Amino acid sequence: MSQSPLLLQLIEALRCLPGVGPKSAQRMAFHLLERDRKGASILSDSLQQAVDHIGHCSQCRTLSETEICGYCSDSRRNDELLCIVETPSDVLAINQAADFNGKYFVLMGHLSPLDGIGPAELGLGLLEERLKEGGVKELILATNPTVEGETTAHYISEMAAEYQVVSTRLAHGIPLGGELEYIDGGTLAHAFSGRQKLL
Amino acid sequence: MSQSPLLLQLIEALRCLPGVGPKSAQRMAFHLLERDRKGASILSDSLQQAVDHIGHCSQCRTLSETEICGYCSDSRRNDELLCIVETPSDVLAINQAADFNGKYFVLMGHLSPLDGIGPAELGLGLLEERLKEGGVKELILATNPTVEGETTAHYISEMAAEYQVVSTRLAHGIPLGGELEYIDGGTLAHAFSGRQKLL
Ligand SMILES: [Zn+2]
Ligand SMILES: [Zn+2]
Repeated sequence: MSQSPLLLQLIEALRCLPGVGPKSAQRMAFHLLERDRKGASILSDSLQQAVDHIGHCSQCRTLSETEICGYCSDSRRNDELLCIVETPSDVLAINQAADFNGKYFVLMGHLSPLDGIGPAELGLGLLEERLKEGGVKELILATNPTVEGETTAHYISEMAAEYQVVSTRLAHGIPLGGELEYIDGGTLAHAFSGRQKLL
Repeated sequence: MSQSPLLLQLIEALRCLPGVGPKSAQRMAFHLLERDRKGASILSDSLQQAVDHIGHCSQCRTLSETEICGYCSDSRRNDELLCIVETPSDVLAINQAADFNGKYFVLMGHLSPLDGIGPAELGLGLLEERLKEGGVKELILATNPTVEGETTAHYISEMAAEYQVVSTRLAHGIPLGGELEYIDGGTLAHAFSGRQKLL
């Protein structure tokens, strides 16, 4: 083996990143070593710190380095609104985009019986405890608009109904600034049937 | 700030990777923390080890964790053939594709007067020493087929001529303006075996 073993090891290790194949791993390794060794060191530290300290919030299950995350411990947030999402990325997306000041609950997936992912794996027991306690007035079901996401939303809405908690679902429709002709048929049909009075 | 600071720090750090914008950095961070913490730890270690131990070979200038790299110290390789490339990625590409058993010399760039990159920055003094010593019979100029790469090849071929060393250039087959490291192995092998005399 003529190539530096540490270099080959780095190229191989970079492939744990999603979407990074052999060519881009190689390009990344050379870029870091030739042009950004400081960035590489910072990345190394950040990775290790994240792995060592980031776990899941005991209340909402999102990624957190504290037992209770920043969202759950924020007393300015409204406890009566609980937004259910599939992943921590969804929390980030909603938080950046929507004017939502309630709390979150992160399923870390969706119901998928064939993969052995049932209510227990999604922490629905924890969610039921929360509904039982009272306090939550509305569950906003922001799971993905996929078959699994819809099934999961339906399952949770039935659970919520048992505790007289209202469930809502994000509106489907045409994305803002989107052009009608480029929108998929399913979305367009949804947007059409969900049309609203203007005046 | 409701989001985990360590998570934000990791997302930011991932952006030192070439071609990684905010969205993919986020996706990478969540992927590692949700599905591949072991991979993240290994990547962290590999990065730090590479940064700490990989320098440049004192003979050919390629990336190496030893003073003299594996190529230069390999006595089965033919000292009479010296292949000149721009980057360590090119060494890797040629080594994987072409049936070449000579040695390499890595310029770590190409002549670019406007950027202050002249003969000294490319280690051409070191290369000249090597030519002066005798022993090298053929310089294979495998710089990129770009304007800068061609200029660099021409400059080096003139230097080689002073020492009665033959210069060859990789054969047609490499697309004009293409970068060596992204070319498929078959094309590269063809180009290598069909190399031609330059001066
Ligand atoms: Zn939380
Ligand atoms: Zn070397």
